[in-house]
Amino acid sequence: MQAPDITPLSYEQAGVNYALIDPLKVSAQRAAATTARHLAGHGFSEVKASRGESAYVIDVGPFYIASIVECLGSKALVADEMARLTGKSYYEGIAQDTIAMAVNDLITVGATPLVVQAYWAAGGSEWFGDATRAQALVAGWQRACDVCRVAWGGGETPALAGIVEAGRIDLAASCTGLISPKQRLSVGDMLAPGDVIVLLASSGIHANGLSLARKLNERLPQGYMTPIDATGTTFGDALLAPTTLYSPVTEALWQAGIRPHYAANITGHGWRKLLRHPGKFTYRIHSVPVVPPVLKFMQQHAGHDDFDAYSTLNMGAGFALFVAPEHAERTVAVAREQGVEALAAGRVEAGDKQLLVEPLGLRFGDDALQLR
Amino acid sequence: MQAPDITPLSYEQAGVNYALIDPLKVSAQRAAATTARHLAGHGFSEVKASRGESAYVIDVGPFYIASIVECLGSKALVADEMARLTGKSYYEGIAQDTIAMAVNDLITVGATPLVVQAYWAAGGSEWFGDATRAQALVAGWQRACDVCRVAWGGGETPALAGIVEAGRIDLAASCTGLISPKQRLSVGDMLAPGDVIVLLASSGIHANGLSLARKLNERLPQGYMTPIDATGTTFGDALLAPTTLYSPVTEALWQAGIRPHYAANITGHGWRKLLRHPGKFTYRIHSVPVVPPVLKFMQQHAGHDDFDAYSTLNMGAGFALFVAPEHAERTVAVAREQGVEALAAGRVEAGDKQLLVEPLGLRFGDDALQLR
Repeated sequence: MQAPDITPLSYEQAGVNYALIDPLKVSAQRAAATTARHLAGHGFSEVKASRGESAYVIDVGPFYIASIVECLGSKALVADEMARLTGKSYYEGIAQDTIAMAVNDLITVGATPLVVQAYWAAGGSEWFGDATRAQALVAGWQRACDVCRVAWGGGETPALAGIVEAGRIDLAASCTGLISPKQRLSVGDMLAPGDVIVLLASSGIHANGLSLARKLNERLPQGYMTPIDATGTTFGDALLAPTTLYSPVTEALWQAGIRPHYAANITGHGWRKLLRHPGKFTYRIHSVPVVPPVLKFMQQHAGHDDFDAYSTLNMGAGFALFVAPEHAERTVAVAREQGVEALAAGRVEAGDKQLLVEPLGLRFGDDALQLR
Repeated sequence: MQAPDITPLSYEQAGVNYALIDPLKVSAQRAAATTARHLAGHGFSEVKASRGESAYVIDVGPFYIASIVECLGSKALVADEMARLTGKSYYEGIAQDTIAMAVNDLITVGATPLVVQAYWAAGGSEWFGDATRAQALVAGWQRACDVCRVAWGGGETPALAGIVEAGRIDLAASCTGLISPKQRLSVGDMLAPGDVIVLLASSGIHANGLSLARKLNERLPQGYMTPIDATGTTFGDALLAPTTLYSPVTEALWQAGIRPHYAANITGHGWRKLLRHPGKFTYRIHSVPVVPPVLKFMQQHAGHDDFDAYSTLNMGAGFALFVAPEHAERTVAVAREQGVEALAAGRVEAGDKQLLVEPLGLRFGDDALQLR
C-alpha cells in the first residue's frame, strides 16, 4: 500500500464536533432519567441498566419492552451523488441501512424486534415525485423488514422545505421489540472474565464514518468513481454496500440455546464501542477480522494509522457478541448459518478497563469512550 | 370581520403538494401491510384495523402494544424567526409540540403512552452550541413527559449538515404504549349511531397549518409581530402556543370508567379528520367551539371561507372523542377536571358518510378525506 500523500484528516475536520453536542446529550440524559418514575404510576418500571445502553428497556410484567429511534446519518448524501454519477438508484440499500441502525441497536439488549416505523422527512414534496427512487426506498424497507422478520407499522413522510435541504431526505427508523422470556435481557450484568468476544463481519462502512468518506471524496481526483482495488469497484459503490442486519443471528442464537452475556453494535467510535460495558474489564483481541477493501482504502487516503482507523471505523467488525467460552464455537457456527461471517477474536479478562488489539499493538484506555 | 383584501391562499400554494406524496404513501402502506405476517413467527399478530389509524397496534397476548413516530413539521421555523425578532427562546413549547404530535396520535387507539424517544436532527453541531435554546428544548421535553406521565427513554441528536439546513433542526418523537386491559382498544369497532361527539379544545394552531401561517407572515407588513386582536398578542406568539397534551384526559376517562368508542386527533386536514373512521356514518355537529383568535386571524388573512378554514385548521377543536350518549356529560366534566375545555358538539347518525357542521352550514362528503 502506498504511503498517503495527503495530510491526515480528523473526524472533527469531517464536520462533527462532539464538544458542542455532548453537553446537550448529558443534560438530556439527566432530564430523561428523572422521568422514569412515571412508569410506577402505571404499575411498571424501567430497567435502569438500560440507560446508557443502545436501547431503552422497561419492565411491564410478563416481559420487557425495548424501544429506540435511530437516524441514518449522512449516507443518503453519498447515494444522491452516486445516483447523479451513475444514473442508478441506491435507495433500496439506503432503506436497509436505516433499518439496520435501529434493529442492530435494539437487539443488543436481547430484544426481538417486532415493529419498525419509517421516518422519511424530505426537503419537499417533489422528493417523492421521483417514482424510481421512492419505489426503491419502499422495496428496500420491505425487504429489510422481511430479513428481520419485523412488521412495518407505518410512519411519517413529511415534506419539510426550509428544514430539510431541497432534494434531500432525512431518514430514521424507530423500532419496538420484546425481551421474552425475560431471561433474554442483556444489559451487562452477565459479562465476566473468560467470556469470548465473537466479532460479526461488517459488509463495509455500514452507516458510520460517512462524513469522513465524503471529505475523502472531495480530495480524490476521481472522487467516488475512484477504483478502490484491482476489481475496479468504485469508492462510491463500495461505500453504499448496505449495512448487515444482525437480528437473524441473535434470534438464531436464542433458538440454539445461546444467551450472549453482552452485545455491542459497532457504529460511531469504531472499536471503542467494545469498551461500551460500564464494568472494569480488559478486552484482549488476539485475531482481527479481514478489513473490507473500502475501509482499507479510507484508512490509506485519510492518512490514518491503525489507532485512528480502529477508533473511527468498524474495520470489518460490525457487531460484537460476548459469550460464555463453551458457546464460542457454536456462536460462530450459528452466525455463519445465517450468512454472517464470524470470528472468535478475543477474551474478556479481569484487569484495567482497556481494549488491547494485540495483532496491531493497539491499546484503548478507559477514557476512549464516554457515552454515559 | 372585514372582507379579506388579498387573494385567497391555498394549502398547495403554501408548499405542500399531496399529489406528489400520496402515491408513495399508498405504495408504502401496501408494502407495510405485507410484513404483518412476520409477527406470527414470533407468536403474535397485528390488529389489522389499526392500519390506517393513527398508531399501529400489535397483540402480544396479555395486552396490545401501540407504537408510532411523528414529526413536528415546520413549526420550528416560526420559533426560529420569533427568536430572532424578540430574543426569546420558544423551544420549550416546541418540545411540547413535538411530543404532542406523537402522544395525541398514540392515545387515539386506547393506548397509555409509556416511553418517548427524542429525534433531534440538527443542521450541524453548532445548533447544540446555543445553550439557552438547547436547554429550553431539554426542559420542555422533560416537562411534557411529566404531564403525560411517560418515561423519556433516550434518543438521537445527530448533526446532519448537508441534509438538515444550517441553523435548523428536524424534530420528531417516537412513542410506545400499552393498551391494557385489552378492552381499552379503540380502533373503531364500537362506534355507533347515537354516540356523542365531544370536542376537546385546542390551544391554538397546534402543529398543523404552519406552512400556511408562514406564507401569511410573508404577506403581512408587520409579519409575525402583527397584533392579532385587541390584547396585542402578536401573530408569532399566538402561533407558538404549545399544543395541548390530551393523554391526561384519556387516562382520566379510563379511571372514570369511560371507554370512548372512537377517537380522532385533529391535525392536518382540520375537521375532515372527524371523517377518519372507515365506517359509513353521518356526523352532525350542532355546536362549534370557540375559535382561537390566531385561527380567526389566519382565516381572515388567508381569505378562507368557513369550508376552507375547517378543512385545513383545527378551528378550536384539537381532539375528538366519540362516546356513548350516557357518558357525554361526564366526559366533558372529566376533561375540564384535567384543565382541558370540552364541548358535547354533535352526534353520530346512521346515513351517508358526511360531516355536517350545522351552525356554519358546512357539509364535508365522503371524498373529503382519503387516508387509506
